[in-house]
Amino acid sequence: MSTDAWTLSPDRFFDPEPSQLSVARRLYATVGTLPIVSPHGHVDPRLFADANATFGSPADLLIVPDHYVFRMLYSQGVPLESVGVPRADGGPVERDGRKIWQVFADHFHLYRGTPSGVWLAHELIEVFGVTKRLNSKTAQEIYDQLEACLASPDFRPRALFERFNIEVLCTTDGAADPLASHRAIRASGWKGSIRPTFRPDQVTNLLTPNWAGHLRALGEAAGVTIHTVPQLLAALADRRAFFRSMGATATDHGVVSAHTERLADAEAGAIFARALRGEATEKDATRFTGHMLVEMARMSLEDGLVMQIHVGVHRNHNVEVFRAFGADKGADIPIPCEFVAGLKPLLDLYGREKDLRILLFTMDETTYSRELAPLAGHYPALRIGPPWWFQDSLNGMRRYLDQVMETAGLYNTAGFNDDTRAFPSIPARHDVWRRAACNWLAGLVVRGLIAEDEGFEMAADMACGLARRAYRLDRPG
Amino acid sequence: MSTDAWTLSPDRFFDPEPSQLSVARRLYATVGTLPIVSPHGHVDPRLFADANATFGSPADLLIVPDHYVFRMLYSQGVPLESVGVPRADGGPVERDGRKIWQVFADHFHLYRGTPSGVWLAHELIEVFGVTKRLNSKTAQEIYDQLEACLASPDFRPRALFERFNIEVLCTTDGAADPLASHRAIRASGWKGSIRPTFRPDQVTNLLTPNWAGHLRALGEAAGVTIHTVPQLLAALADRRAFFRSMGATATDHGVVSAHTERLADAEAGAIFARALRGEATEKDATRFTGHMLVEMARMSLEDGLVMQIHVGVHRNHNVEVFRAFGADKGADIPIPCEFVAGLKPLLDLYGREKDLRILLFTMDETTYSRELAPLAGHYPALRIGPPWWFQDSLNGMRRYLDQVMETAGLYNTAGFNDDTRAFPSIPARHDVWRRAACNWLAGLVVRGLIAEDEGFEMAADMACGLARRAYRLDRPG
Amino acid sequence: MSTDAWTLSPDRFFDPEPSQLSVARRLYATVGTLPIVSPHGHVDPRLFADANATFGSPADLLIVPDHYVFRMLYSQGVPLESVGVPRADGGPVERDGRKIWQVFADHFHLYRGTPSGVWLAHELIEVFGVTKRLNSKTAQEIYDQLEACLASPDFRPRALFERFNIEVLCTTDGAADPLASHRAIRASGWKGSIRPTFRPDQVTNLLTPNWAGHLRALGEAAGVTIHTVPQLLAALADRRAFFRSMGATATDHGVVSAHTERLADAEAGAIFARALRGEATEKDATRFTGHMLVEMARMSLEDGLVMQIHVGVHRNHNVEVFRAFGADKGADIPIPCEFVAGLKPLLDLYGREKDLRILLFTMDETTYSRELAPLAGHYPALRIGPPWWFQDSLNGMRRYLDQVMETAGLYNTAGFNDDTRAFPSIPARHDVWRRAACNWLAGLVVRGLIAEDEGFEMAADMACGLARRAYRLDRPG
Repeated sequence: MSTDAWTLSPDRFFDPEPSQLSVARRLYATVGTLPIVSPHGHVDPRLFADANATFGSPADLLIVPDHYVFRMLYSQGVPLESVGVPRADGGPVERDGRKIWQVFADHFHLYRGTPSGVWLAHELIEVFGVTKRLNSKTAQEIYDQLEACLASPDFRPRALFERFNIEVLCTTDGAADPLASHRAIRASGWKGSIRPTFRPDQVTNLLTPNWAGHLRALGEAAGVTIHTVPQLLAALADRRAFFRSMGATATDHGVVSAHTERLADAEAGAIFARALRGEATEKDATRFTGHMLVEMARMSLEDGLVMQIHVGVHRNHNVEVFRAFGADKGADIPIPCEFVAGLKPLLDLYGREKDLRILLFTMDETTYSRELAPLAGHYPALRIGPPWWFQDSLNGMRRYLDQVMETAGLYNTAGFNDDTRAFPSIPARHDVWRRAACNWLAGLVVRGLIAEDEGFEMAADMACGLARRAYRLDRPG
Repeated sequence: MSTDAWTLSPDRFFDPEPSQLSVARRLYATVGTLPIVSPHGHVDPRLFADANATFGSPADLLIVPDHYVFRMLYSQGVPLESVGVPRADGGPVERDGRKIWQVFADHFHLYRGTPSGVWLAHELIEVFGVTKRLNSKTAQEIYDQLEACLASPDFRPRALFERFNIEVLCTTDGAADPLASHRAIRASGWKGSIRPTFRPDQVTNLLTPNWAGHLRALGEAAGVTIHTVPQLLAALADRRAFFRSMGATATDHGVVSAHTERLADAEAGAIFARALRGEATEKDATRFTGHMLVEMARMSLEDGLVMQIHVGVHRNHNVEVFRAFGADKGADIPIPCEFVAGLKPLLDLYGREKDLRILLFTMDETTYSRELAPLAGHYPALRIGPPWWFQDSLNGMRRYLDQVMETAGLYNTAGFNDDTRAFPSIPARHDVWRRAACNWLAGLVVRGLIAEDEGFEMAADMACGLARRAYRLDRPG
Repeated sequence: MSTDAWTLSPDRFFDPEPSQLSVARRLYATVGTLPIVSPHGHVDPRLFADANATFGSPADLLIVPDHYVFRMLYSQGVPLESVGVPRADGGPVERDGRKIWQVFADHFHLYRGTPSGVWLAHELIEVFGVTKRLNSKTAQEIYDQLEACLASPDFRPRALFERFNIEVLCTTDGAADPLASHRAIRASGWKGSIRPTFRPDQVTNLLTPNWAGHLRALGEAAGVTIHTVPQLLAALADRRAFFRSMGATATDHGVVSAHTERLADAEAGAIFARALRGEATEKDATRFTGHMLVEMARMSLEDGLVMQIHVGVHRNHNVEVFRAFGADKGADIPIPCEFVAGLKPLLDLYGREKDLRILLFTMDETTYSRELAPLAGHYPALRIGPPWWFQDSLNGMRRYLDQVMETAGLYNTAGFNDDTRAFPSIPARHDVWRRAACNWLAGLVVRGLIAEDEGFEMAADMACGLARRAYRLDRPG
């Protein structure tokens, strides 16, 4: 085979040992083409609001908005301006998609062995039909091919959504968001299922930049003037009901730590008053966020919204990149997490509720076997979310399956999330998970831990069933 | 093969690659049937005190007392009452073994890929001769079979002890325990070797519920009135001597942290006085426990009892389960540990003593390669205990062997513990370890790290020899 | 094969699965004999200053100076005196190489499955031509053989350097070191490339024993009287220039934590003044070391010296061994590290500089995937150093490759270091790395993650290229 030809191995990501490989193939044959359930992610719903929306240039689609991609270039000295990342001050950056693409192709070796490399190969080969390996020499020819694809109606967002066989796609939306795109999608009569997710971080984190503005927006959206904690809770309850009416089945909470506590009303009120005066401290913010997690759990028990908690990230670690380019530029870095003491106050109140559903996500893998699996293997309210972000990778999945499943059991986990803003990478990401799952199950079969028929059931659950049930997407919408 | 047939693969848990598999088989052939050395666990010695003791119903044996089993059911919303777990207030719970068994069978898929699933399969198939897979439909038929077995003399505790080929079984006993069952066993003339282990946590942890009562009981057992630390130490020394006279070779210490320190006499006395007045703080308790670890090490150096330290568990995390059902109900959750600073005061005093033997156990796997292996690979007094509790699993063992052995060396480890209160699971647990050990050694052989004849020696050591020597069970009893 | 014969398997350390094995073999065939690039280590340059230097007896070479070797003996109760480790007080220790060798051979089973065992086998078989396994019976015969070798000119340091095909060997040298051996090597006309590395820990760590003496020595070496921080910085700048003139391309900083901060001049001055008065606290030392790391980064940006930071070791943990034998006796124990908050002040100032090169090393593997890979996968100035010390092992390498590469990408890593003071172990250590690298790459090839031709490029980079470029050894010296 010429080193220029580019194909995907049909046995990719499986262990090569023949007995395990043959089981993995059999399992994958039954789940590889099941519909995609995408219960958590950051795709922009505007893409689907207008039947004629397009993705722009190949660079606009694959590079400029994807911090997974450009952070690797930046790490090797490529200026973000040269790959078109917009500056916060509107200053000059490269706008020529062809030039951006060439820089990317010149550095494509950087992605060897990385999940971004795996996803990009899948997107180019499977989604766009590229047949030559991307490198400095083939860059422009491949750009031509992508450009031609993107100009065709078959590559509009709704067309790809259908081609990708997506059963449901959940977006992530601020508490005050009017969900205009979601309304437009419903009004359009298009059958694609796009659901919002309620994420109130901007108001529950007292230190959010422009917190007061976000609070005002929430009040306006809910028709409530917010001067007190009860008013805040009333506004959040109102918005939860609205999100549910728009098809939401879940909330999402991105928090620095898993600290929770039930503040006395007077103390919560005093902290909130300090925040309104612009005097909230870091400790105030930590305690108030912990208090709001408890309140959100209480509301989830009432209204049935599944509660996602993503813990442990130092956002915008690179001050200069944040100043020049803003948030979500590949400079968020994980930090250690602690769940056992942190979640106890919330669990003391609600952990035993089997009708409450809390999904925990971490970037601190040390907590998988030590804390998360024992907690989820005990508390009825808890499930463990899939490997998140940097762990959304073959090795990350293997470590997760290795460290979580024996103690928590498969049925205390929540299937897969792609958690992406890169729409065309969705099939690639689910394919990696399904293959990793089948390979893991094949390992259990050939080692005599499960019977092959159990493997088929578990594979289908891992591909779709667990995610559907964990997010209550199997209930009438 | 019908999906209803249930058998154990003769090659279970081995890697399927043929060259490694064939070495693993050869190694296992030499150690699979060696006698079981069980130097640490929680089997009730009363089972063996009376030649006619029985295990009760299948549910009484396999479900009601086993928190490994029922915590998984609870995690999926099954009330503990419905599987017969007794309430602390004596309130109503299910008593019908058949109904409990049916609930268990209905949820048996929850154990797929878990160590509990592996042990239960081994117990049902190997110990009881079950040939059909357990599920909702086969539940009652299998119950009949188990009930019939348990009614026969062949399934009495002593008979199974002999059938299991147990060379020695160590129990775990409070410092004030009169060891009546151990006396009765000795008096009975039965040849089974059951040894006690000295566990003084109830008096060394000042915050134990009813600490004063435990202290009084200790004083009575030792014939000492305990008002001071020297009196406490005298009583403990007396009981250690008694335990030794009853065959004990080890002590056990379950502590929240590995903190140690040698308190000045006056400080220890002041803390103890506060505790007697019911005024001990958490800090007092941490320091006093750390001081008592140092004192226990000193006594171990004198009397030769091997010192086990189990570190890092948040006991009874679920307040409601603790209130309703009491301790040991599957709600103990591991927490992070630190050994390097914590053990230093003890090691400064006794770490260089080659006649002292301290075995360290952790649930925090991050300490395996970072702390425990370097410490045990240096200090003559230290050995690393086997993977404990949730890590007593195939993956847990693999991670332990991977992270501990290169740095500590095999001979600074302590073989295997089953650490169980579920007597019929003992052969299953040792079989998993022996297979995991042989598979690991086979991997070393085929990768050229050891010669096959070395593998045979190491396999026998891992199966029995290391445990015998680490616990000094090879010395005259 | 007789169990007495001792050979190295040509396929050692490769996975046995045939398809992966055959790729690994092909990759290794192209890199196994590439020259050795050794950019960081602790070999004594005096060995090469004199063309007629010798290694002494087999015990002098392989046991007495190697704490990797004797700490394992000590851990099993062998007194350090009995294997010739010199006492600090000059007290009596075994001096007879034959007796030391016999003790070592009697305990050689302790190294089974350890990296020391692997290296020792390679040294004895490959370097010395031993053909029988070392044990109690063969000990003296093998000693004879080693002694004969070491008496021959072929086993002098320079001869072995050439036979080992070492392209460059970097030593580690104190800031005040006159580099006399390096001068002598240059003056001798010998072509071996031996470069110094600038390690100023003795003056940047205010709590170094005899800090004032080290400071005075630095001042004398630089021709500066040091009473102030600017004078200290001037002296360090002077020495950096001298080291560069002697071929240095890197600095090295061994620090307890990764804490960094830019102290205000007045504060730095006040701390330094306290240190000069012998009144520096632990907190002073932590802050001052953090400040000096920032200053060293600033200088590295100016002069181009690559900055190595080795983080997280509790030195001389065993007080008694330290008192009796001094430092570097196998009693250094790793501790947890934190990089995300700790390095932020330094990274805020210099992290975005693509001309700055900082290499991070840790013994806390939990930081690989959580902190180091995300940081190095973003900041242009950062690279991750190879698995260090206890992790310089097959499993350590596998875990490193598993946890680092997907997120950081291969090209944000720095190839391999042997980091050894045991000169004859250098080929063994590089061979383990090259085989581990080829095995990992073969795994990527057979799982369809990379093409085989990419594997060849990556294998060559991992063997030499990355280290050369990371340490700027590819630039004119």
